[in-house]
Amino acid sequence: MAKPVSYANYLKLGELLSLQAPESAAAGRPAHDEMLFITVHQVYELWFKQILFELDRIDAIFAGSWVDDRNMAVAAHGLARIVEILRLGVRQVDLLETMTPLDFLQFREVEVRLGLRREQRHAFEDQPYERRLAPAEQRHILELEQGASLADLVEAWLARLPFMETAGWRFREAYRAAVAEAVRADIAYAGKSAALSDTQRAAQIKALEDELARFDSLFVSAPEVLAEPAPGWRMGRPAVLAALFINLYRDEPALQVPFRFLSLLMDVDETLTTWRFRHAQMVERMIGRKLGTGGSSGYGYLHSTVERHRVFADLFALATFLMPRAARPDLPEEVRGRMALAYAPAGSGEAAPA
Amino acid sequence: MAKPVSYANYLKLGELLSLQAPESAAAGRPAHDEMLFITVHQVYELWFKQILFELDRIDAIFAGSWVDDRNMAVAAHGLARIVEILRLGVRQVDLLETMTPLDFLQFREVEVRLGLRREQRHAFEDQPYERRLAPAEQRHILELEQGASLADLVEAWLARLPFMETAGWRFREAYRAAVAEAVRADIAYAGKSAALSDTQRAAQIKALEDELARFDSLFVSAPEVLAEPAPGWRMGRPAVLAALFINLYRDEPALQVPFRFLSLLMDVDETLTTWRFRHAQMVERMIGRKLGTGGSSGYGYLHSTVERHRVFADLFALATFLMPRAARPDLPEEVRGRMALAYAPAGSGEAAPA
Amino acid sequence: MAKPVSYANYLKLGELLSLQAPESAAAGRPAHDEMLFITVHQVYELWFKQILFELDRIDAIFAGSWVDDRNMAVAAHGLARIVEILRLGVRQVDLLETMTPLDFLQFREVEVRLGLRREQRHAFEDQPYERRLAPAEQRHILELEQGASLADLVEAWLARLPFMETAGWRFREAYRAAVAEAVRADIAYAGKSAALSDTQRAAQIKALEDELARFDSLFVSAPEVLAEPAPGWRMGRPAVLAALFINLYRDEPALQVPFRFLSLLMDVDETLTTWRFRHAQMVERMIGRKLGTGGSSGYGYLHSTVERHRVFADLFALATFLMPRAARPDLPEEVRGRMALAYAPAGSGEAAPA
Amino acid sequence: MAKPVSYANYLKLGELLSLQAPESAAAGRPAHDEMLFITVHQVYELWFKQILFELDRIDAIFAGSWVDDRNMAVAAHGLARIVEILRLGVRQVDLLETMTPLDFLQFREVEVRLGLRREQRHAFEDQPYERRLAPAEQRHILELEQGASLADLVEAWLARLPFMETAGWRFREAYRAAVAEAVRADIAYAGKSAALSDTQRAAQIKALEDELARFDSLFVSAPEVLAEPAPGWRMGRPAVLAALFINLYRDEPALQVPFRFLSLLMDVDETLTTWRFRHAQMVERMIGRKLGTGGSSGYGYLHSTVERHRVFADLFALATFLMPRAARPDLPEEVRGRMALAYAPAGSGEAAPA
Repeated sequence: MAKPVSYANYLKLGELLSLQAPESAAAGRPAHDEMLFITVHQVYELWFKQILFELDRIDAIFAGSWVDDRNMAVAAHGLARIVEILRLGVRQVDLLETMTPLDFLQFREVEVRLGLRREQRHAFEDQPYERRLAPAEQRHILELEQGASLADLVEAWLARLPFMETAGWRFREAYRAAVAEAVRADIAYAGKSAALSDTQRAAQIKALEDELARFDSLFVSAPEVLAEPAPGWRMGRPAVLAALFINLYRDEPALQVPFRFLSLLMDVDETLTTWRFRHAQMVERMIGRKLGTGGSSGYGYLHSTVERHRVFADLFALATFLMPRAARPDLPEEVRGRMALAYAPAGSGEAAPA
Repeated sequence: MAKPVSYANYLKLGELLSLQAPESAAAGRPAHDEMLFITVHQVYELWFKQILFELDRIDAIFAGSWVDDRNMAVAAHGLARIVEILRLGVRQVDLLETMTPLDFLQFREVEVRLGLRREQRHAFEDQPYERRLAPAEQRHILELEQGASLADLVEAWLARLPFMETAGWRFREAYRAAVAEAVRADIAYAGKSAALSDTQRAAQIKALEDELARFDSLFVSAPEVLAEPAPGWRMGRPAVLAALFINLYRDEPALQVPFRFLSLLMDVDETLTTWRFRHAQMVERMIGRKLGTGGSSGYGYLHSTVERHRVFADLFALATFLMPRAARPDLPEEVRGRMALAYAPAGSGEAAPA
Repeated sequence: MAKPVSYANYLKLGELLSLQAPESAAAGRPAHDEMLFITVHQVYELWFKQILFELDRIDAIFAGSWVDDRNMAVAAHGLARIVEILRLGVRQVDLLETMTPLDFLQFREVEVRLGLRREQRHAFEDQPYERRLAPAEQRHILELEQGASLADLVEAWLARLPFMETAGWRFREAYRAAVAEAVRADIAYAGKSAALSDTQRAAQIKALEDELARFDSLFVSAPEVLAEPAPGWRMGRPAVLAALFINLYRDEPALQVPFRFLSLLMDVDETLTTWRFRHAQMVERMIGRKLGTGGSSGYGYLHSTVERHRVFADLFALATFLMPRAARPDLPEEVRGRMALAYAPAGSGEAAPA
Repeated sequence: MAKPVSYANYLKLGELLSLQAPESAAAGRPAHDEMLFITVHQVYELWFKQILFELDRIDAIFAGSWVDDRNMAVAAHGLARIVEILRLGVRQVDLLETMTPLDFLQFREVEVRLGLRREQRHAFEDQPYERRLAPAEQRHILELEQGASLADLVEAWLARLPFMETAGWRFREAYRAAVAEAVRADIAYAGKSAALSDTQRAAQIKALEDELARFDSLFVSAPEVLAEPAPGWRMGRPAVLAALFINLYRDEPALQVPFRFLSLLMDVDETLTTWRFRHAQMVERMIGRKLGTGGSSGYGYLHSTVERHRVFADLFALATFLMPRAARPDLPEEVRGRMALAYAPAGSGEAAPA
């Protein structure tokens, strides 16, 4: 550096600390709490910018046709940082004591960049959500919607997972068989259980058959079907099965960081959801459920977004498709070997000096 | 003390640390995570017991026909402690990684003791909620429902607030007049505003008239009406108006601690609600939204309770009945004087050496 | 408002979000983590500004020759907000992953405004702490040091507490007598306890006598002594005794909010101390305890400030001067009466309808 | 399961909730806050048991002569859980309002199991720390001290790291050369810098030479030296260098989870340290710094342990031995290849479909 930059200049503190201009003071009736309102929201905006910046790097890692294994921990680290920022944001809600209708453009950006879809949004006053933004902002957000979201990139990455089949073995078929065997055993057991009345027996068998059908809908492999999401899912079947595979065999060296990455995506979704929930709660506390507050910040609107705005709902839905560890299919040696670290190929694994 | 008690004996650590008996180990297939499940839930139960213990003292303070002013800070302190325990409970949800359907009897007790009513509960499987408990527990919880809840005691205390009227002045009437004046000014303004189309004008005037009617429903004073809650409220009008009064004049010495007490009741409700929300979230993450998990811990059930199980919703609803500070009616000197501290009667207030 | 201000204009988002300019990018070697560094520190600065703003209002309340009772809850509320901001600041330390030597001017301001004295500061490199600041900043901080700090204002307010004596009764003497009686009973018990050897007995009696002397140093009332702090204290004896009085009789209506106010001052100190501690920890993690990092941000410097920079140490020290509730002197009716609320004078207290 | 176990029986709630027996009630003078004291400490003890249980599994993973790569994420997960429990424990300190001298046997166990050494402990009253425990507890803790601690197991694992050298390349030498080159360039620059006076120049060159010597002490490889820790370190040089290697090349697939594991060990140490710090703070607030409270819970004792009781100080000390990423030595292809995943050997890395 040619000349040393002072901390104050580096952080541009002069400008930064001149940007808090309460309207109430300008209007001659200073309201003490307005300053807190401004500070809290400026802090939120700085955090949103940081989240978008972290998403940039993660997107870059997942953008191409392959992901360098060396970058997986970097991506996980970036997500962990986003989660930590969002947790701070949730705690910061405690500080809010006044609240007016407002629109966070950058918050919308975060949602779009993660993968929230236009059709998931709660339509408010029958107009598209972006209408509340300024024209330049509308163009910006519409452009973002055209690009690949993190959810899209993650789906593509999952669909490419290189361990799902090998000559003579397919995870899809192995898992289907394991599920079928387990459910049929349960059906057989129900069929002869003395503890059940006939009505109960019929109901239980029916439930198990429905369960089997539910699983089966995941295993379809006809090309025309693979091209679209399974009913009730956002992702296509290949990506869903890969996510299932990563969950089931999370201990294999090649899957440890991918599993952590998927967990962190769920943490992002969960923390954003909690943030929306706490925000709705706080708005209710401050301005009540008054009809007519309208706009995108009224309690009704906010509350309706809490659950609808989930992006990685598929990852949560996987929970009902996981078999207990003991019942999951064993992996062929070759597949396990490919998921090991290079210095210690499978088979020799047990004796590896590590 | 005749003989000194060691820390271990005092805390009964021998017994305490022998009460974690995983079923999976007993069944010969030890599952590591079961221990965490047991620990987390035993810790929850210890906290619930502590909350009930704190409620005992608060109830005792509010139980009679008057509340000693000297006990108000004690009651507030007890509530603050409950809030802090509930916040720990919320954070503890992060630790849960396995989850089975379960029923916290003590959690039900906390709800009933606070004032959750049978009819607010989400009926599950068309049977009363207590049917899932053991017979002795059912009797216990039904008995509790007969007693006065904290919500009942607080309502009675509010309805007795001794500052609401004096010879020649009634808060109810003063506030009604102030509201009417403000709304009528708004109606007049809308009537001649050039910025509004005729349709807009009509709509806005209609909205303001509805607003006035909404307020008016609070001010009815006919004895037969006073006996029951205002429509949409849980508490009766006298208690609602007293809570409004405390909010509006919270700075008067006699109201500072009561205001804090009401705020803490809202914190209790809010933190319990967040706890239920996070619990539902975690259950979804662990066991999905699987149909048929049934029971009182499935995601659907849990999610439905998040909002319905509010106890102090009235206090939140007050937010829409508060006029801006500048527009609230001035208090007669006599009323302000009665709310001052004894050593410094109103009037001399400005010069008091404190 | 003549023309509606958009959220973005109101918060000056354009300017705000243009103030993050990483040096590493300017130098052509962009370092991803520098952005987080900038964001975290800009957020800290916004919070510091908010804390200073809250201190302005609290100072104004305590600035004159008396404090309006109606403002006590406002002051407590302001402190509670500062504590909440500081807690957020502590959590935010978790996000730091890079760290360079730095000086927070505003943090220094907060310290000086609270009451940190020049002589408490850990001298670093044998030069006054402000030398590290720019000249204009030096002048500013030196000026602040000349003004009354919150600690000064609180001391003056405590020293004026109007309940410490009445005709024929002085708290100072009543408490001195109660302490003396309790300690003498302990000495008599030790004198005849069969469980003690002679050496133990002598040691125990000596310890109790020292205890008595320690208390006695608080009770001196000679005018020339009252003018200066008791040895080991920052505040003068009248303020210390008043703080003790508030602690002992915290349930009296007139003392409930003052007690809360004193507790919140301790919370401020405690949270600031935790912030310094976590900051020192994080610096160690990031740049180690390397000799020669020098400046005001090295681990050694930071660690040394953790405890030295306490402002309200006197309030913590009170803990060792509190007698158990049962042993504290009873208050004369007149004193209790003056601390009651006006509507319910003492004596009639038990029957007051509240 | 033969017969279904109810939640209450499973958690042994009857026994659990009968173990809170306040002494004050037994003595006829019930003190409300004693119940909180008991609850808080019983909860701590349950958490300590859980931490010890998690340590059991981690120890088992690291106990043998090699660590199965498949278990690394399990170990990291266990540590993350311990960190989360400790963070809850830190927050729980906020709830404490009374405090008596006490000894957590299980807390001592956690310390010993992690690796806290007898000689690190602050000797209190010139007697070994375990003397304050009951005889059976003393035996137990002394036995634990004989076993291998987590710190020991981790050191052994690090010292075995199989990537530190290959035919014709040694990390120790490569890093030594890189450091020497960097420092010499700095010395040359200082030697001719016009900005320095002769005294400054001499001082700066001296500092750089000291720095080089500091590094060099790590690189000694004489067998008799390798057998013992480097001066100022706890671990031996091979483990220290391996930890350095993991830090520098943390992105290689084989090092991603080990790096996370080391970071989590630092988190454990940091959170335990914060816990001790907050505990000392709270004790001061409750019982002051009174001389003579003695025992292992007085403020003085507690405060002195905050820093001395670090177990993984070596990992923190590494921070001053890390060269910037750009200056670190490049790895030979063979070494990088061994650290890749088996399915994608180095070289082909860039094109791997993942």
